[in-house]
Order: sequence, then structure tokens, then C-alpha cells
Amino acid sequence: MISCYKNPNKLWCLEEEGYRPEKTKHYEGLLTQGSQGLHLRASYEEGLAAAPQDESYMRLPANVTVEKPRHPRSKAGCYIPGVTGIHPLLNEVVVNLPNPLTIRLWAEGEPVDMDSPQMGDYARHLDMRDGVLYRSFSWKTDKGLVSWGISRYVSRAVPGLIVQRLEVSADYEANIRLEAAVDTKVTTNGYNHFTDREEFRVAGCFGAAVDTDNGDHVEMVSVLSPNAGEPETWEGVLTPGKTMEVWRLTLAASSRDEKAPCREEMCQKLNSLIVNPSALYAPHAAAWDALWEKGRVEIQGDEEAQRAVNMALYHLLRSANPRDSRVAVCAKGYAGEAYFGHFFWDTEMYLLPYFLYTNPETARALVGFRLNTLEGARKNAAHYGYPGARYPWESSLTGEEQCPNWQYCDHEVHVTADVAFGIWHTYTATRDLEFLKKAMPVLAETARYWLARCHFDADGSVHINGVMGPDEYICFCDDNAYTNTLVKKALGYTLESCRLTGSELLSQQEQEKIRACMEGLTVFRDSRGILQQCRDFDRYEEPDFETLWPDRSRPFGGTVSQERNYRTKALKQADVLMLPYLFPDSMGQEELEKTYAYYYPYTTHDSSLSYIIHAILKARMGHGDEALTLFRKSLGIDLDGGAAEGIHIANCGGIWQGVVLGFCGMGCSYQQEKLTFAPHLPAHWRKVSFPVVWQGQEHFVEITHEGVVIDGEKQK
Amino acid sequence: MISCYKNPNKLWCLEEEGYRPEKTKHYEGLLTQGSQGLHLRASYEEGLAAAPQDESYMRLPANVTVEKPRHPRSKAGCYIPGVTGIHPLLNEVVVNLPNPLTIRLWAEGEPVDMDSPQMGDYARHLDMRDGVLYRSFSWKTDKGLVSWGISRYVSRAVPGLIVQRLEVSADYEANIRLEAAVDTKVTTNGYNHFTDREEFRVAGCFGAAVDTDNGDHVEMVSVLSPNAGEPETWEGVLTPGKTMEVWRLTLAASSRDEKAPCREEMCQKLNSLIVNPSALYAPHAAAWDALWEKGRVEIQGDEEAQRAVNMALYHLLRSANPRDSRVAVCAKGYAGEAYFGHFFWDTEMYLLPYFLYTNPETARALVGFRLNTLEGARKNAAHYGYPGARYPWESSLTGEEQCPNWQYCDHEVHVTADVAFGIWHTYTATRDLEFLKKAMPVLAETARYWLARCHFDADGSVHINGVMGPDEYICFCDDNAYTNTLVKKALGYTLESCRLTGSELLSQQEQEKIRACMEGLTVFRDSRGILQQCRDFDRYEEPDFETLWPDRSRPFGGTVSQERNYRTKALKQADVLMLPYLFPDSMGQEELEKTYAYYYPYTTHDSSLSYIIHAILKARMGHGDEALTLFRKSLGIDLDGGAAEGIHIANCGGIWQGVVLGFCGMGCSYQQEKLTFAPHLPAHWRKVSFPVVWQGQEHFVEITHEGVVIDGEKQK
Repeated sequence: MISCYKNPNKLWCLEEEGYRPEKTKHYEGLLTQGSQGLHLRASYEEGLAAAPQDESYMRLPANVTVEKPRHPRSKAGCYIPGVTGIHPLLNEVVVNLPNPLTIRLWAEGEPVDMDSPQMGDYARHLDMRDGVLYRSFSWKTDKGLVSWGISRYVSRAVPGLIVQRLEVSADYEANIRLEAAVDTKVTTNGYNHFTDREEFRVAGCFGAAVDTDNGDHVEMVSVLSPNAGEPETWEGVLTPGKTMEVWRLTLAASSRDEKAPCREEMCQKLNSLIVNPSALYAPHAAAWDALWEKGRVEIQGDEEAQRAVNMALYHLLRSANPRDSRVAVCAKGYAGEAYFGHFFWDTEMYLLPYFLYTNPETARALVGFRLNTLEGARKNAAHYGYPGARYPWESSLTGEEQCPNWQYCDHEVHVTADVAFGIWHTYTATRDLEFLKKAMPVLAETARYWLARCHFDADGSVHINGVMGPDEYICFCDDNAYTNTLVKKALGYTLESCRLTGSELLSQQEQEKIRACMEGLTVFRDSRGILQQCRDFDRYEEPDFETLWPDRSRPFGGTVSQERNYRTKALKQADVLMLPYLFPDSMGQEELEKTYAYYYPYTTHDSSLSYIIHAILKARMGHGDEALTLFRKSLGIDLDGGAAEGIHIANCGGIWQGVVLGFCGMGCSYQQEKLTFAPHLPAHWRKVSFPVVWQGQEHFVEITHEGVVIDGEKQK
Repeated sequence: MISCYKNPNKLWCLEEEGYRPEKTKHYEGLLTQGSQGLHLRASYEEGLAAAPQDESYMRLPANVTVEKPRHPRSKAGCYIPGVTGIHPLLNEVVVNLPNPLTIRLWAEGEPVDMDSPQMGDYARHLDMRDGVLYRSFSWKTDKGLVSWGISRYVSRAVPGLIVQRLEVSADYEANIRLEAAVDTKVTTNGYNHFTDREEFRVAGCFGAAVDTDNGDHVEMVSVLSPNAGEPETWEGVLTPGKTMEVWRLTLAASSRDEKAPCREEMCQKLNSLIVNPSALYAPHAAAWDALWEKGRVEIQGDEEAQRAVNMALYHLLRSANPRDSRVAVCAKGYAGEAYFGHFFWDTEMYLLPYFLYTNPETARALVGFRLNTLEGARKNAAHYGYPGARYPWESSLTGEEQCPNWQYCDHEVHVTADVAFGIWHTYTATRDLEFLKKAMPVLAETARYWLARCHFDADGSVHINGVMGPDEYICFCDDNAYTNTLVKKALGYTLESCRLTGSELLSQQEQEKIRACMEGLTVFRDSRGILQQCRDFDRYEEPDFETLWPDRSRPFGGTVSQERNYRTKALKQADVLMLPYLFPDSMGQEELEKTYAYYYPYTTHDSSLSYIIHAILKARMGHGDEALTLFRKSLGIDLDGGAAEGIHIANCGGIWQGVVLGFCGMGCSYQQEKLTFAPHLPAHWRKVSFPVVWQGQEHFVEITHEGVVIDGEKQK
């Protein structure tokens, strides 16, 4: 452990440049560590005196959003995917668990705090290869200088294990005190979800247990070595020039585990592991190596892009869990509390491709989540008065709608088509007919929903009225082109799946109606032939960006009133342009250029899902410079200060798509039988290489300006 | 007092038919008493054991509405208009104050409760002539029968005074105990708004004081006579056959009063009044007589209608306050907590006409509220990014928006035009140029808002996009006919007011732009020439009422999902039809018939504002039977069980309009110079008579099937 402490590899390193108090929270999100079932924000062990972690708040006034600005300085976070609470306004939310990292530090009886002028020589970085976080700083006392080095990781080899190592030395005989804790005085989005908290000691260990208001139980047990007097504490006098080393191991377990957590057993295990804590690193690092081996992308000629791509893949690999299809990856990748741990269309449209083409097992867990939540989707359909299944805009663990704002959950019906699209994508990428058979109930039930939700006009045309498309700045429109197209595709995939699996879940009569629906579904074009985002899109008012949006550093949606936004052509993100992105064959180059030129000036990119789609289209159109500019915007979303409330995990998936589907021009399996590439590398990118799994076969792809090499073989 | 106790006049009596537990809450609302600055729901003095009054609740889940169903059995209510609290979700709300009516009753040590089988001979009625509420019942003990008679009123002569009288007798030597209290353990919409509560005794009196979380202070002081031992209590043994009489007087005062409340002075006053409590009735009754003299409507030939009209006028006279333009009449007429005490467009469109034409002083207080809240309206405009003044959909005391649901406050912009319309209506009904001068800033500032809010198209046409009209079942549409017409009217009234007052508040340039706006404002018609509720209304889906609305006893909006409702032609209430109602000249008979026939089948009347408009139009069209059917629907809204959460006070105003503007066909002052009537009385109505004030002149109108007589003079 601490192998690259002094000499990190820049390409694999997320490094803080000195201590900047205003960036603390951003780095807490950006440097989030975790392993599938346990995720930890990069808060300081000792906390910050200026940032209490048990704030309670409610929104006031109620008018527009249910969120109150959160504490700006720091938010510690510990999340176990699937451990949830019930919030009166936000519904089911992922719960911020007791902080298992807490170690309060004293030198000469004074508490250590990063905000203090006594602090110096601050350095911190996360090594993305192994997910180890390193921090070092010095602390000036009246008597001399104390040097600290603190590192930690969440083990990829031992489920639920957190390893912390603390080194401290001084240039004098310093009095040092450490006090470790599992801090239960924490809130989630300003709300206490613990119905019970217990702090305990057991056989040389200490810990805490909580019950959440959604019925989960969590135990965390720690051991500190060496400790003195009390198991949580070490206190002593340093020998000048000699480094004192303290280890802390923590196990976290929950009622979601196969076996009910038992603190005595956890303590026993910790007591055996603490004998040789250094030995824990090798299997952990090996597990990360294996992940990177399958999931890496190498870009030669652009170190900035390489590092940013590594960041994106690091968080994808961290947050997805191939072994648990009872959860998916939440919108902030379990690196913060925004979006409340809910699951969005991100799953299918932004996260799935990376895993499908690099780690199909993980992809299947993600899609498996939708299969597992069919019953919830049925309830949603019934709630809205329809037969079949309607997937939620913001999903709970059971697939029931959690979105606290009705305009989204009522109207963003496209998610139900996206789920079917994700199933078909998974099938075509894997050719796993058994999977498709298992997915048939989802396809059949979502098709039934559409047959009821679509409006069959007397003239045979079919309309989907009163929807919100991917662009959330038009709140209620008819015949959104994206929605209607995806529904038509989903229905087609469903019919094809019936044929392939021989399923009789849908009657011949239902299949007939599906065909009529597909035939009648209408998209609209304006007088110049441009695909309209929705019927009447051309009638929306021109957004006066110059007057209404003087400060482009703020989102347009945060500058203008919602009612004004809703009646202009201002777009939050790609909407019509999602179609040529997903289905390149559907639009010729000329039409794509025209369509792009029409919509781009209206697009605010207030959504983190926006830039990467535009980058990919620009790459495919052969406009390398513009593509790269847009790609870099996407790379910067989290890296450049946006990670305070968590990671924009969908954009992380988008970044992989940007490289592989955009610049390298890979065709997707729902479009073509064979693995092919039509690359448009930026001029200074010498080579991009990456593994791809295609229909069960592992390939290695190398793309240069000279051409495409797959498994060492040059492609024509 | 208790003059008509045994022999109430049915036409003036709201009577309960025996004790029906499921109707308790309805009658609490329907029999609400009050006088301008103090209102009391008709809860029982002794309360109901089954209905605690200090419930706390929050909505769960959050999805559609911010209200949780309230306690179904009983809700005591005491409201002082303008005494408010701040709710985290509902914003400023009228606060349910400590219950000043509480008198717990015991016989033989057993508490009296209306739900008990010991209770019998229950009778209760409110005399609408004087606002006195009478209740009598018997109570069976092991030893015999106790008879109770309890009456009370809120004095119209002494501000803030509540008079209670209790009579009790028994057929044996009964042990009776009374314990009066000002009960501070009450919540408003399940929320505690008291930051401080104090119960006190002072010089033979007792009482309580509270502070609200919006900074108001309320004092309530009571005296009980006779009392024994403690000032709150009377206890004794009854002489068989002899009636024991106990009086309680209570004074309520608040920090809103001119003079800060002083409990010692209040107690002193009570001690002087309690010497002869019977004497308090005469001036109270005289004040009510004077109100009825000015505000009555007499219908000969329809006792049911007469009684219902009396009910409507009773609550209008009770709830409006000519002496306080710092408040208006809230949506539930201070008879319940629904709509949270907010002020709506009801003020101008439903309440104002009755007062304008019967009691202009009160009308001026209502409009004065809008003049007083201009600053708040300016803040609303700025909040949405506009110059000028934008009146709120749900007004606070300062005119700021309080609506917790954005689709209403963001989109129901018509209220700003309604306010201007109300000003012009007031001016034309009074010809008071001084008033118009005072109102000029409102007219000018609202016009400025419209110039920014309207969309001036390149072709010279002007559109108001992204609105909700009066019909709240279409949430977001362009060019709502009602909105566009009212804005055009409001702008016209504004220009005319500039001319009349010589005001230079609007520059010539602004006036020019107003003219262009009026000229360009567009309404749309379908292919048959029918005025469209909004652009594209004909494209909304047909509502399949037969399938979606099997149980017509429930509102359509409570049966169907909101998203489904929002994309159909289903209407909550009159929208286009508000126009021929307000401006009869704007639509010929043939067009009106056609327009009515088109919209009526889509109209669910889920809003209490709906029936009366249709009734009036039907009356004017000469379809007497249908008009009467619709009018009776309106009469039944509160009377037939709908008053549990308060009085639909706008409908009460509507009922007066139904009689006077509908069946009697009075023309309004904004339409014509002279007072005229074009009556269409229902066949069995022999005569309708009522006073009218027209431009400062008091008239008495008598309408029969033979013709119209004004001030004894038959009209041609």
C-alpha cells in the first residue's frame, strides 16, 4: 500500500492542487471511493469544524424545487446501494449512513482542522488504478511541526471492508491523540432517516448500528491498531524523526446481505485481519487490475483526455455491481445525495453501452434491475390508469415512481421505451436468447401500456400527446419525435422478440394492434423538412438568450423563470439529436447537418447528458475540432468542479461512448451484425485502443489515423 | 336572545336533521358564525372524544398534492382574517387559533360526548337573520334525564366578542360540572403555528395568548357566570324542573388591531358586560338587520331557493369586512382551512359584484386589498423576470404568491387582468373618479407586465403563450381565449382610465404599445367558427367519460390521472363560456347556443365556480328548466354536504349573480350606463325583489313575470 504515494502517475491520478476550502465539497465527490456495495465520499477523517454533518432542513418556500441548497463546505457520505429511507417529500432515498471514516486528531491537545492556519503542505490524490486515496499535510504547534499521512481504500477483495492507514511523525516529542468513531449523527438531504442508533464496543472493536425508516439495518464494526485504553483511541508521545503507524479496519454489513449482519463475527474477522493489514492490499489491487484490464481505454497523444477518460471509467467501475441486480447505478453514482439515489433512463441510454461492450455480466445486472422491477412498473401503469407496465422516471428499488415533481414522472414516458430498447440492445450485443426469453414479460407488458397510452386517431394516425421528451425545458407537448421514434422501435423490437423466442405472451390481436400503432405513429417536420422536436415546435418563442442569459457560467434554467423557459425553444439537452446519435442510418449527412444547425443554437446544455451527444454527432460528421471542444466540455463536467453533489455518472458512460461510438465510430449491435469502426480521430490523437466484447467474443481494438486493427488484424 | 329557539323560520334556518356523525364536519363548516374580524366553525363546545384537534401530519407521498386528507370527523376552527402563520410547504396560511368556545360538560362525573348512546333529542340550527347557533339535546344518566340548551353568537356590535349561553335542567337532582377553556392545543392543516402559548387567569377571568410563527400575537379572555371555585368552572346540583343558566363571554384581540391587546382591559370590559349579558343581543341583531336590509334577495315561489340564497348571502355578509382592506375574503370564507386562507381571482370575478351592487363600501375594501398589495405584485413580476406588477394566483397579505403548485401560479396569469377588470367594474359601478385615480398605479403597472409577458410576433399578431385559463384541466396552452380577451379588456380599461384621470403614469410610447398589443391579441376559432379555448383546443383528445368516469359522485379529476386529464378536452369549469357570461354583447344568441353546446359536454364541473356560470347563460338563453337545474346544483354545493372544509364563498357570490345577473338579467355597469333588467324568471318564481346600488343611488327592484319595477316604477 501507499506504493505511489510520492510519485503518482498523472494519467491515473486525481490530484488536488493545494488546499482550497471552496473546493472541498467538489473533491469529496470527485475522489469518491467504493466497491459495488459500499461507497464513501472523500471527506476528511477528522471532519471540518465549519461543516456540521447533522443539519436538518426543509424547503422554504415550496414553490419550484424540493431541494434546499445543501451545506456548501462539506458533505461526508457513506452509501450502501439498496439501503434506503423514506423522505416525506422525496420518497424513497438512498441513505447517508453513519460515517465509518471518522478519526479525530489532536496534537498537543489541539484538534486538527484543515481550515486552520496551523495546517500546511497539503497534498491529496486518488490513484484510479487501485482506488486508494492519499492525503498528507503538516501541522504547526507551539513546539514544532507534526507531519501526517493518511490513506484509505474500500477493498475490492473483501466485501464491506474499509482500510485506513495513518502515519504521523514530528520534529519534536509531540503529544498526539487519535479518536476513531462511527459517527451516527449524520443526515441525508437534511433529514434524519435513522429510527434507531446504537454505538457499541465488542471484543476490542467498536462500532455503531442503525435502523433506517425504510426498514434496513446496518452494522459497522471497527478495529484500531495500536489502541490504548479505549478501543477507539490511541494516544502517545512521538519519537522525533520516527514515523508512527496506525491502522484502522472497518467492516460494514446490512440487512440486504445474504446473511444477517452479526457484529461479533465481524469483530472476529477484523481481529484476524488486523494482524497483517498490509496484506489486504494485494488482492484488492489485483481485483482493480482485472477490472481495468477489461474496461480500459487508452488514448495516445492526449494526456488530458486520457486522464479524464480514466476518471469516467473509474467511477463506472466503482459504482456498478455485477453481483446485484436488485439495484442499478443511481444518478450520482453513489457519490452524493442529489437525485436521492433514484434510477433514471441513464441506465439504458448512458450506462449500459460501456458495460455491454466491455463487461456484459455487469450490463446484465443493470438490465436485470428492470426485469426485477416489472411488478413496480405494473403498479405505475395501474396508478396512471393503464394496463401493462410503465417504467418510472425515477425508480425505487421496487420499480415504483419516486419522482417528487409531477411534470417529469407524468410526462417523461419515453423511459418505458428506453427500457425496451435497453433489453434489445443487450440481446443483440450478447445474442443470448435465454436472456431475451426472460425479458419477454417486460416487452409484452410495456407494449400493452403503449397500446393504451397512444392515441389512435380516426384517420389512422397515432399520437403520443402530453409528454416531455429528453429535453426537460418543454414540459408538455404532443408527438415528441424522440418519444414517438423510441416507442415505434420498442414495439418493433417486441414483435421481433416474440418471433425469436416463440413467446405467446402477446396475442395475435395484440400484435396486430402493435403493427397498426407502429404504422400510425407520427413525427412532424417543419416547412424546411427539419424533424420537429414536437408538433408545433416551430411555434415556440425564440429564446432571447442575450437578454435573459447574461451570465453563461450559470445554467439558463437557473437564470430564467420556469414559465418563460417552458414557452421558448430553449433546450436543456439533445432531444431530436438523440435520434441520429442512436440510429445513425436514420439521417443522411446533409439532413444531420441541417438538423444539428437548427437545434444547436437553442441548446443550453444545462443537462450533463447534452454535450457528449453533440460531440459524438460532430465527430461522426467529421468536424473534429468542434467535436473535441464539445467532448472536452463533457470531460470537464465532473473534473472541473462539478462533483460536489456526486458524480454525473451518465456522462461518465457518455464519455466512453464519445471515444468509442464517436471518435472511433463503432457501430452498435442493434444496428449491425458485425463489429465495425468508422473512425474520426482528432488530429493529435495518435492511437486509441480498447477491449470490446461483441456477442460473447472478446476483441482488442487499435485505431490510428492509418486505420483499424482488430485483434492484431488490419480492417479494410 | 334565543328568540326563535323553538320556532325557527325555515327560510332563515340552517337546521340539522338529528345527529349524523358523518355530517358533523360538514355542519361545522356550514354553520360557521362570525363577524368580519372573527370567525368560528360550528364545533361543539365540549368537542368530540373521537376527533383530536392537535393532529400533526405531512403529506406522504409527495406526488400530486400537498394536502393529506384531514381528520374526517371534526375540525374546530377559529380564524382572525390576517392572523397568519408560515407553513414550510403551503407558505403563508391563515392560522386556526386557540378554540375560545371550549366548555367541557359533565353529568354525574361522566363527560358529555355527542357520539355517546346516552345522548338523545339532538337538534341544532343556525338562524341566518342574526347568526345565532342553537343546540339542544338530552343526556341520560343512571339517575335520570338532563336537558341541555346551548347557544352562541359572534357579536356584530362589539368587535371580537363571543357570547355563549348554556341552559341545563334535569328531572332529578343532577350533579353537573362545566369547565370552560381557551384550548391552545390546536393545529392548522396538521401543523403547529404557535411559537408561544400561555394560559392565564386575570381578575376573575381566564384566557390564553399565542404567538404565531408569522409574528402575530393573539389574546383571548373569557368570563364565566356563574362560576365557582375557579373562574373556568361551574359545578352544582340542579333543582329538578328548574333551568340553570350559565353565560360565557369571550373577547379576542390581536396584534392586527389598532391598539395592542391588553388582557387586563379585556377582562375589565368582560366583567362589565357580564352583568347583563342578555342586553348584548339587541345591538347585535340590529347590526345584522341592517346588513340584510341592504343585502337581501327575496324570492317568492321557491322556498328551497330562498333558503339557499339566504345561506349564500349570510356567509358573504359574515366573511367580508368593509373596515379592513388589509385582507380580502379567503377562498373558504374563513370557515375552514382548505386553500389555506389564500386570496384568489374569486375576489374580483365572484365576490365583488354582490358587494358592488349592494354595499359599495365593502366592495371598495375588497378592491382596496389589491391596491394595498401592489408592492407584492411588483415583487411577483420581478421574480418571474418581468417589469410592472403581476398579481398572484394565491395571494398573501402582502400580495406575494403563495400557491404551492407551480402549474397554477406560473400559468394562471389571467388573475392580473381580472384585478384590472375588478377596478374598472368598481369605477363604473360607483363613478368614483377619486378611486380610479388611486387605482391608476395598479392599472399602469399591470399593463407594463402585459407588454413584457405578451409575445409580439413578426407578423404583428400578439400571443400569450404557456398559460392556464380558468379551466385548470388544461395546464399549459397558448392563447387561451379568456386570458387574451381579459388582457385586451384590461389594457383598454387602462387606456380609458388614463384619459379619465388625466394620469401620466404611462408614457405616450407605452400607450402606443398597449394599443398595438390590443390590436394584435388573437383568439382562435375552429373550422365551425367556435371560439377555441386555446389554440389547438380541437386537437386535444376526446375524454372517454364513460370508461374513465364511472362514478359521477366523485370528481373526474380525482378519478383519472392528471396526465390523462391534461391531454383531453375535459374541462374543470367554464372557460370560453366565461366570456359571454361577462360580456353578453360579445356573442349573439346563435353563437352562444353553438358554443355552449360544444363545451358543455366536456365540462366536469369539478370546480365549484362552474355550475353558476352555466346556469346564468342558460337563463339568458331562455332555457329556464335547464337554468334552474344548474342553479340548484350551485345552491347545493355547500348546502348538500360540501361545507366540511369551509364555505365555497365564490359560489356564494355566484348564487347572487345567478339570481340577479342571470334570472333577473341585470346588465353590469362596465357594459352599460343605465340599470336595466332582461329577466327570465323560472315559471314558479312569482317574484324576485332586492335592493341595488347603482352609481351611488339606492334602488329597490321587483321582478315578476309581468315585468320589472324599479323603485315602484314599472319599466318599459
